[in-house]
Amino acid sequence: MAMPRLRIPVCVETGVWFALKRRLTESPISPISPPNNWSRPVVRAVRPQVDGGRRPAKTTVGDYVTVEADAFVDGHESLVCDVRARHATSGKWTSHRMQPLLDDRWRGSFPVAETGLYRFSVRARIDEFATWRDDLKERSSAGQDLTVELRVGADIVERAAARARAGQRRMLELLAESLRSSRSGLHQTVSPELATWAPGTPVSETLAGVLFGDLLGSVMGDLADPDTGTTSEVYGAFADVAKARFSSWYELFPRSTAEGAARHGTFTDVRRRLDYVEQMGFDVLYLPPIHPIGTTARKGREGAPRARKDEPGSPWAIGSPAGGHTAIHPELGTLADFRSLVSDALARGIDVAIDLAFQASPDHPWVREHPEWFKHRPDGTIRYAENPPKRYEDIYPFDFESQDWSALWLALRDVVSFWVEQGVRIFRVDNPHTKPFAFWDWLISSIRAGSPEVIFLSEAFTRPRVMEQLARIGFTQSYTYFTWRTSKWELETYLAELTCTDKADYFRPNLWPNTPDILSEELQTGGRPAFMARLVLAATLSSSYGIYGPAFELQEHLPRSKGSEEYQRSEKYEIRSWDLESPANLSAFIGLVNKIRRDHEALQFNDRLHFHPTDNDQLIAYSKVREDPEGNDVVLTIVNLDHHHTQSGWVTVDLDVVGFSGGVPYTAHDLLSDARFTWTAGSNFVSLDPLVVPCHILALKQEDNPSAVTVGAS
Amino acid sequence: MAMPRLRIPVCVETGVWFALKRRLTESPISPISPPNNWSRPVVRAVRPQVDGGRRPAKTTVGDYVTVEADAFVDGHESLVCDVRARHATSGKWTSHRMQPLLDDRWRGSFPVAETGLYRFSVRARIDEFATWRDDLKERSSAGQDLTVELRVGADIVERAAARARAGQRRMLELLAESLRSSRSGLHQTVSPELATWAPGTPVSETLAGVLFGDLLGSVMGDLADPDTGTTSEVYGAFADVAKARFSSWYELFPRSTAEGAARHGTFTDVRRRLDYVEQMGFDVLYLPPIHPIGTTARKGREGAPRARKDEPGSPWAIGSPAGGHTAIHPELGTLADFRSLVSDALARGIDVAIDLAFQASPDHPWVREHPEWFKHRPDGTIRYAENPPKRYEDIYPFDFESQDWSALWLALRDVVSFWVEQGVRIFRVDNPHTKPFAFWDWLISSIRAGSPEVIFLSEAFTRPRVMEQLARIGFTQSYTYFTWRTSKWELETYLAELTCTDKADYFRPNLWPNTPDILSEELQTGGRPAFMARLVLAATLSSSYGIYGPAFELQEHLPRSKGSEEYQRSEKYEIRSWDLESPANLSAFIGLVNKIRRDHEALQFNDRLHFHPTDNDQLIAYSKVREDPEGNDVVLTIVNLDHHHTQSGWVTVDLDVVGFSGGVPYTAHDLLSDARFTWTAGSNFVSLDPLVVPCHILALKQEDNPSAVTVGAS
Repeated sequence: MAMPRLRIPVCVETGVWFALKRRLTESPISPISPPNNWSRPVVRAVRPQVDGGRRPAKTTVGDYVTVEADAFVDGHESLVCDVRARHATSGKWTSHRMQPLLDDRWRGSFPVAETGLYRFSVRARIDEFATWRDDLKERSSAGQDLTVELRVGADIVERAAARARAGQRRMLELLAESLRSSRSGLHQTVSPELATWAPGTPVSETLAGVLFGDLLGSVMGDLADPDTGTTSEVYGAFADVAKARFSSWYELFPRSTAEGAARHGTFTDVRRRLDYVEQMGFDVLYLPPIHPIGTTARKGREGAPRARKDEPGSPWAIGSPAGGHTAIHPELGTLADFRSLVSDALARGIDVAIDLAFQASPDHPWVREHPEWFKHRPDGTIRYAENPPKRYEDIYPFDFESQDWSALWLALRDVVSFWVEQGVRIFRVDNPHTKPFAFWDWLISSIRAGSPEVIFLSEAFTRPRVMEQLARIGFTQSYTYFTWRTSKWELETYLAELTCTDKADYFRPNLWPNTPDILSEELQTGGRPAFMARLVLAATLSSSYGIYGPAFELQEHLPRSKGSEEYQRSEKYEIRSWDLESPANLSAFIGLVNKIRRDHEALQFNDRLHFHPTDNDQLIAYSKVREDPEGNDVVLTIVNLDHHHTQSGWVTVDLDVVGFSGGVPYTAHDLLSDARFTWTAGSNFVSLDPLVVPCHILALKQEDNPSAVTVGAS
Repeated sequence: MAMPRLRIPVCVETGVWFALKRRLTESPISPISPPNNWSRPVVRAVRPQVDGGRRPAKTTVGDYVTVEADAFVDGHESLVCDVRARHATSGKWTSHRMQPLLDDRWRGSFPVAETGLYRFSVRARIDEFATWRDDLKERSSAGQDLTVELRVGADIVERAAARARAGQRRMLELLAESLRSSRSGLHQTVSPELATWAPGTPVSETLAGVLFGDLLGSVMGDLADPDTGTTSEVYGAFADVAKARFSSWYELFPRSTAEGAARHGTFTDVRRRLDYVEQMGFDVLYLPPIHPIGTTARKGREGAPRARKDEPGSPWAIGSPAGGHTAIHPELGTLADFRSLVSDALARGIDVAIDLAFQASPDHPWVREHPEWFKHRPDGTIRYAENPPKRYEDIYPFDFESQDWSALWLALRDVVSFWVEQGVRIFRVDNPHTKPFAFWDWLISSIRAGSPEVIFLSEAFTRPRVMEQLARIGFTQSYTYFTWRTSKWELETYLAELTCTDKADYFRPNLWPNTPDILSEELQTGGRPAFMARLVLAATLSSSYGIYGPAFELQEHLPRSKGSEEYQRSEKYEIRSWDLESPANLSAFIGLVNKIRRDHEALQFNDRLHFHPTDNDQLIAYSKVREDPEGNDVVLTIVNLDHHHTQSGWVTVDLDVVGFSGGVPYTAHDLLSDARFTWTAGSNFVSLDPLVVPCHILALKQEDNPSAVTVGAS
């Protein structure tokens, strides 16, 4: 009862148990026939794999996706494993050979050339030739007769020849012939043509020389029988523009940009501010909501329940008779002014990011036009925002589950599309965790299907699983707990979680030392050293970071009240006039740090962040590495976490991580002070005075060892 | 453009991204409509989940399956989460309330009553009532007017009443009425009927008393709107018989059971040996292959390449003119004798396990009848087993990929079915890692579809990923690296991997201090203390363990040669006569250890294994706990790992793990020596002399605290 085995390469993982499950429910037990397709290798535990493959991992154009998998086979045969990848719009799979790590784990990668979805899978094939060759070596060493085994090898090579392209085929046929006719075993001389396949010089003329050469091994690996292969399920990686990975954000309130007198700033004032922003080296200029502000229950200075006359209100109370989410607050200017700002900024490489705050003031046109988009209480009133017992009467949340929900969703999608049409490619999303995940999932998918370059930053300061889920369903970048992670232990464990775990496959951190909502205790009390240290930490720990200015660079540090994280005279509720000429202004320092980020590719990625030991808990030291054939880029940052005292200690750089050899000194060039130190293996002394500069950002270079060193992932 | 939202409870995880993926390939980009079904809660990261849910986790009858999941929702609403479970043959789902742990993780469990596949999922619903009640408390504390909010609550209760069964409905309707008519707010007196719903005594007569009672919270949780729910995908757990989890194996060679003179032992001799096996407390008697042994290239004493005349050969060289895998080796007796042995053993609660060694001697009938089931070399000979340069000429492996593979697979399945029909329910599978995974997957599914009680033990001493995969695809129990884990650090890390990681969901360890193939260095050199210590470690670290006897209990310790793990005069190649009356025999000690295992349920599970600190690296200490309403079973084992010297030290029992309170002393009753110690919180002194007994197996009891204490999982 011969049953031909269908040679369909499938994942052996899926078939049989499901068959059993079906049986157990559908029919009484009876003998089950063997599966009609199967293959011997197992491929599993593929990474990156977000939500079991239901979601794409994140990558960016210009990067590569590193893929790992467990691959193994019964018995002792060798495997050859490849990553197979293709862009979703391309029909053609490319293959990329993987290398074995420990314990049947394999690693390979594929390059990312354009935005959009890439698909990839891992294929393992049995390398019959490598297996045979290894065995042959053992048999030969043991002095066994090889006659029959060489004929076995000839058959293997002949079958591979049939799969090869013409040039290779000729060589393989010669080899098969040579194996079949061999009388003096492995020492037999081969034809001069075949001998050119041997490795090294002089050309090896024996069968052994050809057979055990790397070239033949590689060729035969490529030609391994696809019928012996198992291919994993197909996973996805969504390629964003590079700015999704490497970005420097600057937030300001446009209404506070008027120079001199405290009049209401305009987009024209913001355009004048672009030089300043560019000099500091930022490439995203994020504006809080620019829409008309409601007057009903408008909040006053310092968040007072009711505004006095002429107080401007919170920009997050969106909507007035002048319009809603697609309108411009009249005092800021016109839509044309906004477009001019966007294009002026873009000309400098700066993206203007706007705020998506999906909520309405009681004066929003939709309150009248679409009362069904809001929640009503039994007394007929619309339910305002609350966090009982706190009330936010100037804000009406939308009801994402109303009878008319899909019309609301479409209207909100149209809001985003509108701004994309105005040239906005980056959105900072306000409180996404208070709207349904399914809404964001759909909205982001929908926008990015047509505009894959659009970036969404999730402003969710909430529970960890919720923040992760927002990233998983599509948010490009995410705010983090960085603001509250201050000790060495906190920073090391949190950044390790963000960069070294599976979370790094989908969650892109954007570190903010301050926001209009958060003036951290450290900045309140730490003075200039705290501002410098927190900036350097944010800018070197993470490839994306941001500050809320000019409050940050002007070292604004007074809280509304003791124990509060609210700013005194918060710009959320009033117009501020900032003295950029103040000697307190840290803009030059910030500009230098951002220049270092641009000059050093290592700081533009997070995948190779590694913390190095120091003998002083107030000194934190970490490196980032970017491999490059012309010399790896290695940046070591050391920060004094004590804002009040000089701290000294010994830093032990893990040379394996930075790819240096132990015997040779290396240069540590401080990119902030331009000082140069000669360091050696073991511990090196560091002393950082917070009153000068509380940080080193050191470019490390081992001169005797300038070429690229392939180093293991940290 | 109102689009009704389909209220199909689905996992929101799956829909949208796949829709996008399809779009990207199938059609040009265009606006995408909102999803047509979605729900707000997210349920993910369900555990147990083997291979992303493609495989069932393992459980046993009489146990319960503990299920965990992340469940959360946007906003601040409360959730109510349930495990929903059903046996595959039952249409009815049962619900089991989950409890919140930290960080949006939930845990619940369902009981396992019969063998076969259980399906389970996790459902999270929004608990509108609990959310409203929490908010009400805040509003009330802040002195806000509650009039409208009580009407909101009345609506919630009324909607729940419509879903309630009659008795509850009446109460809920009364409550809704009371909420709606409340004039004096929460202090209003309720009707006497409704007041009975209040918690505690005296019966609370106010609206607040009823409203904030646990009973109402629980009832309203059960009645939470199913339309707000998200249900995870359905996962599986396969329930084995209890012996799959808790088993004590004894292996012997039947041909060595003849008493007195060195004649060939028979099944009748084995039946005589049953008293002995039963007295030692074993419940699985495992016999190496019992089939006819080939004569071609038969191996001789000490594994010599050729047997001399009258040497019996290896039982793993299966097949002779007398038959193959369904035949009995003539010198052992008849099939009827075997069946008598099986039924005599079963009458004592002992299962006879046989060996599935799927390979053939050159004399196996299939070599003649089915030459296509074997691999042939170019010279026409059949390929014997090899591990180049080693040769095993007495063994032909099957070719599981031959042109006629499915007939071979079916024939091998028929072999298993044949022995199941003879009453065999347990199979020890020889070298499963040298046969295709797909074969075992199919074979085990196929057999267990009809006979879910059958147990397969995987004898794979190979790479970790391969051993895991065999367990994942269906092997009930697995051999481990225990034999080579000897130091405290090795034992602690390895057992933690086996019992505390996801591996525990599918990999059931069976610990063997020795096997006919492995006489460990420790047993060679450690004397009687080594045999006692290794036995106690195996028997108390794992709910399943086994020994190869009588070699083990007679302390057989001589290797074939220095540095070898092979036994001198291995029973694999010759018949041995064992002197069970020897004073060296440890059978009484073994019987005591197995009795302790039977008496203490804690030792019959692995899920609550916890290692406690000691200040001496030669002393290892660990507890197992089984919760019981009538008093938890707590067993603490301490073993001296130094077989040559008395070791003393301080053991610090982690009281949280065993569920004891710190202020009260507790009794440690040594079940081996019957000694009783009074221990207290903190460190307790222990001294173990290997020449006496190198272990304590202590039953811990806190007399002032005899009732069950619910303690956290270790």
